[in-house]
Amino acid sequence: MKYVRPIIQDLKAYIPGEQPKIAGLVKLNTNENPYPPAPAVLEAVRSAVDARLRLYPNPTADRLREKLADLHKCQPENIIVGNGSDEILALAVRAFVEPKSACTEQTQNKCLVQFFDPSYSLYPVLAAIHGALPNPVPLRSDFSLPDIDELMNSSNWRFDAALTLITTPNAPSGKGYSTRDLEMLCKAQNGVVLLDEAYVDFAEENAMALALKLENTLVARTFSKAYSLCFQRIGYCVGPAYLIEALMKIKDSYNVNGLGQIAAFATLENVEYYKNNFCKIITTRTTLTNELRLLGFEVYPSSTNFILTKPPKTHAENWLKLLRENNILVRWFPYPRVKDYLRITIGSDDEINKLIIAIRKILNNL
Amino acid sequence: MKYVRPIIQDLKAYIPGEQPKIAGLVKLNTNENPYPPAPAVLEAVRSAVDARLRLYPNPTADRLREKLADLHKCQPENIIVGNGSDEILALAVRAFVEPKSACTEQTQNKCLVQFFDPSYSLYPVLAAIHGALPNPVPLRSDFSLPDIDELMNSSNWRFDAALTLITTPNAPSGKGYSTRDLEMLCKAQNGVVLLDEAYVDFAEENAMALALKLENTLVARTFSKAYSLCFQRIGYCVGPAYLIEALMKIKDSYNVNGLGQIAAFATLENVEYYKNNFCKIITTRTTLTNELRLLGFEVYPSSTNFILTKPPKTHAENWLKLLRENNILVRWFPYPRVKDYLRITIGSDDEINKLIIAIRKILNNL
Repeated sequence: MKYVRPIIQDLKAYIPGEQPKIAGLVKLNTNENPYPPAPAVLEAVRSAVDARLRLYPNPTADRLREKLADLHKCQPENIIVGNGSDEILALAVRAFVEPKSACTEQTQNKCLVQFFDPSYSLYPVLAAIHGALPNPVPLRSDFSLPDIDELMNSSNWRFDAALTLITTPNAPSGKGYSTRDLEMLCKAQNGVVLLDEAYVDFAEENAMALALKLENTLVARTFSKAYSLCFQRIGYCVGPAYLIEALMKIKDSYNVNGLGQIAAFATLENVEYYKNNFCKIITTRTTLTNELRLLGFEVYPSSTNFILTKPPKTHAENWLKLLRENNILVRWFPYPRVKDYLRITIGSDDEINKLIIAIRKILNNL
Repeated sequence: MKYVRPIIQDLKAYIPGEQPKIAGLVKLNTNENPYPPAPAVLEAVRSAVDARLRLYPNPTADRLREKLADLHKCQPENIIVGNGSDEILALAVRAFVEPKSACTEQTQNKCLVQFFDPSYSLYPVLAAIHGALPNPVPLRSDFSLPDIDELMNSSNWRFDAALTLITTPNAPSGKGYSTRDLEMLCKAQNGVVLLDEAYVDFAEENAMALALKLENTLVARTFSKAYSLCFQRIGYCVGPAYLIEALMKIKDSYNVNGLGQIAAFATLENVEYYKNNFCKIITTRTTLTNELRLLGFEVYPSSTNFILTKPPKTHAENWLKLLRENNILVRWFPYPRVKDYLRITIGSDDEINKLIIAIRKILNNL
């Protein structure tokens, strides 16, 4: 091991949700969209599979950035496209946060990656990879956002943290945050705030305006969840040009594959198809919430394409196992604040029916 | 700028070769393969463009890794697949090299990214992004590799550098290095050596055996150049399992897009098609070399799909401009050791004919 950096040797890697390819498995574990991309998107990708594959893609995804700039009423300079929004998050840590070794006790704020607990469990891993200091701060007991006064009085919230990562709406709680609250928080921070809006298309409101108004705020989005393009790895980030430029400087030269750029561009020309899917998923979310509550599950209100639920009768990790035996895959996290819960992706109505049938069967046997 | 790290503010980003989309432009600037992917590869990708795009790809490209393990007679644990080999290079810097802030004068070796000059101009940028120390060491005047004795007597070669990056065959010189010389060098190093074999399919020999024999040696390969898949961003790296594991721990969760994985897998089932293309490119390389020499160009022997050449009559940067006016794009680097040269990708015979015609025309006017 002598050639590997000690911080990498000690690192506990992020473990993504399983991606098993098992026929008949109902896969409700990684918040994928149950509906395929729009037919026109598939056609656009298919017809681009030709001799051009031999050429490098546009290194800065300019055509897609221009389209996104139109959508968000900003300039291409306010946008970076990433190899999924995970790449954007990793770039933000590297661009805005110092490693611990570069900080003294007096400048410790410069090496802080701050986030609420629970939220996306990748954040502390990104801090660790970079040799930075993770600063998890508990959400309220109902997973809602502490207000500014509470943070002022909190023993560990840092208003001067180099980078604050906020999943909004949150995962794995599914809880939406109001733009008003987020704006107060962003304005109070003396450091970069990245609002990670991976699930925002399933929510009541979004905070994109903050990225175009505040000098310290970025909003990350992805085509994976709402736009059924996980396979193609397209995320992006909007914000002040000088912050975007910093991310651009350190990305890999050709970070976004060409067919992914084409797929995302075509997606933006077919948004009505996807909006219709959002409605279907939100309707299914209501149905699932109601059904689960009738069966004795505690279910948090969700602004996302998944729900967080506390199952009855036996503990959550056991439910994970029992559901898997019934060919249904959901997500369970071994973290203190959420270990009593399951996170269940909103699948198609058919998948959710299968889930409910399996749950009824399991409950009968318990 | 206050929220951007000083090292990122000061950073001069890598500038990739232009990717203009101009009809009729003869593009010989970024070492792309003039031949398209095999028809069977295009068909495999096309037929995968379906509902699966909504799902995450395999996070560790396992099917492709198994296929590559068969090819190289090793285990999947000896292989990581990356979003192009550029990602592999960046990961290696982050896994094996400390930032300067973590080193004292006594442990400075731990923050050294060492490479020969000239070679891939991305290397010093990767060191700078990481806050590490670049250690460029001159190649001999004919761009050949210094031998161990010369390096022993060199004022700045470090046998204890944390990471040594060697492009082999080299870019932009096109010069091939013997595996015997590389083996001596790798064995003499007390640190990781990454042999960057992006162009190896056009060379007489390769050093893959070293990655499977030595505990400090990695070999990086790419599907971009030889296998006509630039657009899809697939590279990989072979080496000792403990080094590969370190790279795996810090990569983004789903770093390789799904259609790229499928394209690369299909490529490995159609290698004869590509071997035939290598022959054609090597033949064209000989033709171009001979023609250019007749026209007064100094041409280095090449083991790659490009040549480095010193043009006659006017300086290289001017030739870049004159060729561009004739709708031909080649590469010129503003670095001391190579500023008198042009790097020209071996295109199709038709493209190379157009190049020669343009050169004759320019020479007549000079």
